[in-house]
Amino acid sequence: MIRRFVLDTSLFVNPHSRKQFGKDSKKAVKGFIKKAKGLNAEFFMPPSIFRELGTFVGSITEDLELIVKKRAPNIYAIYLPAAVFYEFVDDVRIRINKGLRLAEEFTADEKTAVSQKLGKLREKYRDAMRAGLVDSKEDFELVILAKELDAALVSADEGVIKFGNKVGCECVDAKKFGKILSALKKR
Amino acid sequence: MIRRFVLDTSLFVNPHSRKQFGKDSKKAVKGFIKKAKGLNAEFFMPPSIFRELGTFVGSITEDLELIVKKRAPNIYAIYLPAAVFYEFVDDVRIRINKGLRLAEEFTADEKTAVSQKLGKLREKYRDAMRAGLVDSKEDFELVILAKELDAALVSADEGVIKFGNKVGCECVDAKKFGKILSALKKR
Repeated sequence: MIRRFVLDTSLFVNPHSRKQFGKDSKKAVKGFIKKAKGLNAEFFMPPSIFRELGTFVGSITEDLELIVKKRAPNIYAIYLPAAVFYEFVDDVRIRINKGLRLAEEFTADEKTAVSQKLGKLREKYRDAMRAGLVDSKEDFELVILAKELDAALVSADEGVIKFGNKVGCECVDAKKFGKILSALKKR
Repeated sequence: MIRRFVLDTSLFVNPHSRKQFGKDSKKAVKGFIKKAKGLNAEFFMPPSIFRELGTFVGSITEDLELIVKKRAPNIYAIYLPAAVFYEFVDDVRIRINKGLRLAEEFTADEKTAVSQKLGKLREKYRDAMRAGLVDSKEDFELVILAKELDAALVSADEGVIKFGNKVGCECVDAKKFGKILSALKKR
């Protein structure tokens, strides 16, 4: 049986996972292409993830397209249990409340300089609202594609992995993906 | 065929819809009970909505329970298309960005008094983050129960109606519910 993998941008961008393939994101893409060529495996990325990766590494994504299939999930044919949605709605509500508490805190602070406050606000707001959450169409497409293809989801993004586990995807820690490819070579 | 309705708290709390049944929320519940008794129709509310309504009208919900069936949706058995989730994720992302812009705006404003800023911030943040969004477990349960029972969803909440329409529920504008009940009586 051919193993199938759906690849996230984070595989090539996250410093902890890209280093197994190369020193920077561009070199990581090149390193992956070299390692993946000729393997008895299929690789997929949604078009939206190709575009996202392109903003980091530029035209090297064209070489990647020779190895990685560009394919969007069929979001109209895949169904998810309402329970997963229910948990998401609740998670978002809690985060919205946290976001307001933060906004209030920084609005009320009259002692700190504005420029300093803005930097801190952005950092804290991002942590509160987005860390661990599937917070973009791109992330969501990734998980649904893996589900549709019954492929393993390769990501270094906490929110993506969490959501993948909720809907029953095989999840691969991006940091270990290099070793998995090496093991496939040995077969 | 018996018509089925799933009732939202907003039917009794929203001033525009409650006035058809009574002058305040408590009287609206009483007025509804009187009007609904003996009709060839079934009424449902999830337990979470009973609790929510209780915070507005107190123990009168016990009388309501004699007319309205208390029943949670089976969120583990109902499935929703991934496309609906996809749109929700995108909507949330846009709102999260708007929330940050607002927080920045009020943090940077050094001219307005803090107390004034806080009031304005809360109002604007609520509008940006929650208006038109299914933003609570209670709202979500309401829609899923209507879907599960193939019942009409009766709500004055923009987010609930929007989501109900997305998943193919019959939606009834809460303001017109009194007239619908009157029409049922005539049959």
